[in-house]
Amino acid sequence: MDITEIWEDLAWDQGGRIVYLVLDGLGGIPHPDHHLTELQAANTPNLDALAKESSCGLLEIVGPGITPGSGPGHLTLFGYDPLKYRIGRGVLSALGIDFELQPGDVAARANFASFSDKGMVSDRRAGRIGTDLNERLVQKICDRVSLDFDGTFFFETVSEHRAVLVLRGDDLSGAVQDTDPQSTDRPPNLPKATAEEGEKTAVLIQSFLRQVSDVLADEHPANGVLLRGFERFEPLPSLQERFALNGVCIADYPMYRGVSRLVGMDVMPRPGGLAERFDTLADIYGDDHDFYFIHVKKTDSLGEDADFDRKVAKLEQVDQLLPKITDLNPDVLVVTADHSTPATIGRHSWHPVPVMLKAKHARVDRVDRFDDYACAEGMLGRRPGTHLMGLALANAGRMQKYGA
Amino acid sequence: MDITEIWEDLAWDQGGRIVYLVLDGLGGIPHPDHHLTELQAANTPNLDALAKESSCGLLEIVGPGITPGSGPGHLTLFGYDPLKYRIGRGVLSALGIDFELQPGDVAARANFASFSDKGMVSDRRAGRIGTDLNERLVQKICDRVSLDFDGTFFFETVSEHRAVLVLRGDDLSGAVQDTDPQSTDRPPNLPKATAEEGEKTAVLIQSFLRQVSDVLADEHPANGVLLRGFERFEPLPSLQERFALNGVCIADYPMYRGVSRLVGMDVMPRPGGLAERFDTLADIYGDDHDFYFIHVKKTDSLGEDADFDRKVAKLEQVDQLLPKITDLNPDVLVVTADHSTPATIGRHSWHPVPVMLKAKHARVDRVDRFDDYACAEGMLGRRPGTHLMGLALANAGRMQKYGA
Repeated sequence: MDITEIWEDLAWDQGGRIVYLVLDGLGGIPHPDHHLTELQAANTPNLDALAKESSCGLLEIVGPGITPGSGPGHLTLFGYDPLKYRIGRGVLSALGIDFELQPGDVAARANFASFSDKGMVSDRRAGRIGTDLNERLVQKICDRVSLDFDGTFFFETVSEHRAVLVLRGDDLSGAVQDTDPQSTDRPPNLPKATAEEGEKTAVLIQSFLRQVSDVLADEHPANGVLLRGFERFEPLPSLQERFALNGVCIADYPMYRGVSRLVGMDVMPRPGGLAERFDTLADIYGDDHDFYFIHVKKTDSLGEDADFDRKVAKLEQVDQLLPKITDLNPDVLVVTADHSTPATIGRHSWHPVPVMLKAKHARVDRVDRFDDYACAEGMLGRRPGTHLMGLALANAGRMQKYGA
Repeated sequence: MDITEIWEDLAWDQGGRIVYLVLDGLGGIPHPDHHLTELQAANTPNLDALAKESSCGLLEIVGPGITPGSGPGHLTLFGYDPLKYRIGRGVLSALGIDFELQPGDVAARANFASFSDKGMVSDRRAGRIGTDLNERLVQKICDRVSLDFDGTFFFETVSEHRAVLVLRGDDLSGAVQDTDPQSTDRPPNLPKATAEEGEKTAVLIQSFLRQVSDVLADEHPANGVLLRGFERFEPLPSLQERFALNGVCIADYPMYRGVSRLVGMDVMPRPGGLAERFDTLADIYGDDHDFYFIHVKKTDSLGEDADFDRKVAKLEQVDQLLPKITDLNPDVLVVTADHSTPATIGRHSWHPVPVMLKAKHARVDRVDRFDDYACAEGMLGRRPGTHLMGLALANAGRMQKYGA
């Protein structure tokens, strides 16, 4: 039995408030020159002081050797076993542009692509057209395409050649084959149903693509669209249903706002900046929410840019803002990450992430620095990422005893 | 869901090469006189230098308190959950003599035994006859027994009173009762089918045993055979199918060659010596294999002999050979064991085994000695043995990201 299901049974709607400060991609590995990780290289007196008053540890987010994407990474921190609660590409793409999916919607990833006179795919990304052109073509499609059913469709720009298609109506299904053939000099696949329940959706997709190729016939280089990852959106059980938590998300990036919405959190209007996110938390802390999730994106982006020094600087900037949170004296304060993004590697990695948890009854340990190595010596030990929510709930007094 | 199944989804056929140096029975406990384990007592400058550049830890191979056999121990290291992938006694015996089982073969353990005039079992091991006599009797049986079916049988010496029977043909089954009654002064059990699919095999076994007792009627003390552990061989999904690894085994002992074959590895001809195994690796490293498994047996045998000093000496000998591997600079180099065999105990034990993993992006820790205690302080922490393959794949760049 999944331990998170036991928490579901034990969680009750009383106890203290929990704050999660998630520094995306926080974890690092030693730099080849000076052998320090980003956190070790950064001057972070406030994070270190917090470590001194916390239980520290390392979280292996999805599992040994597994490099988490942002979706599974955050679901894990929220107490959702990412091997059980899976989000597909179509839904993630819609979440990634902050699109408010409704239950039963079918979402798919779309690429603007180039097709030859004979209907062969000549470039699956239409030469990576710019976002401006994408937006004009999306507008044209939305203006001119109409689908004959008791429902509606949404076609939305993501960026460059990428877009998202969402169908909304009754009896839709994700059981439709990708039209993207994954290689060039071939015709696109037909959007055939892969199961009987996909028939209705497949017919709609055929009609959509036929009209799109008419609408884009004179365009260059993007004279058609490829679709893949059809997926019907079924919302996850909410944090409220599972853990009796009324959650709220404070984030600027669409993906994290989307994942939060997926687990039933309220989502604050975009604060529009790092300091503004911390200010927003200070403004609302103590309202009727029990769970506050504040997200920092740049630690990850700078890791992906392989920019060690700017990732370090970003950590120092976060450190300077930390008192805005610690001054609130939250009942439970957690600082951690959804995965590592070592600047030395330049992408997400499998390395466990540091975590610290401050609460009245936490076993404070001797760790006096918040970094990837020091936390390995902490009282929380090394543990799966899914454990975090249980520890947070317990420390907040939000779980009953198991058995008599 | 079993985490190794997630690796199956994520593994791809690109990335670096992995070398496993498995020192069988490596782990130890402190000697009662000087309180050092075998690894602590040994002078191993090369292993220690490698520890300095590695992530270190302890592996609990099958699970807490569980003493692994060699089969499950190695399957674990190869990423096969030994609680899910079980190998029975019959198949293990055949693997243990390097017999090349084919899918559908039925194998059973055989004992030469002594029977009284009245057909009672008087000695289940025929006084542990010597291997020479065993070989003569096996030859006699193979020459004179014939089974009336569209298939064939193999009867092969293991050692002393032990042999293996393999039936090869269509529609065979392991659903046959042991004939070994597990005690003396009783008649052997009939080889009855324990399920309908075992009927055909049971009839063949009856015929085999009847002929054997005729053939051995004048022999003393081994005038009959007992059979147990009937098992139909179904090959495991290979390392290639599961983790996109093209593996190769460098080992002298049959059991390890057999287990490697079981997971689809190529098996090099017997190098015929410890140094020769290291030389073989040096010769072939860089060929079209991705996974190189090199096995050292004597660390286990000397542990089983309760010979602390010679186990220490063997470790020092391995240490002297280590540069033959480190000079290859493998993309991922792992040194570990399939279980502990503390010389102070004189048999396999449940104690976790030390492990070190060297790779470009491994989090190097402060561990500067490779031993049972020092490794407990390492960045890999204490973890289940099945985790190792995931960490090796990740460090070799052989897994994609999980989710977006």
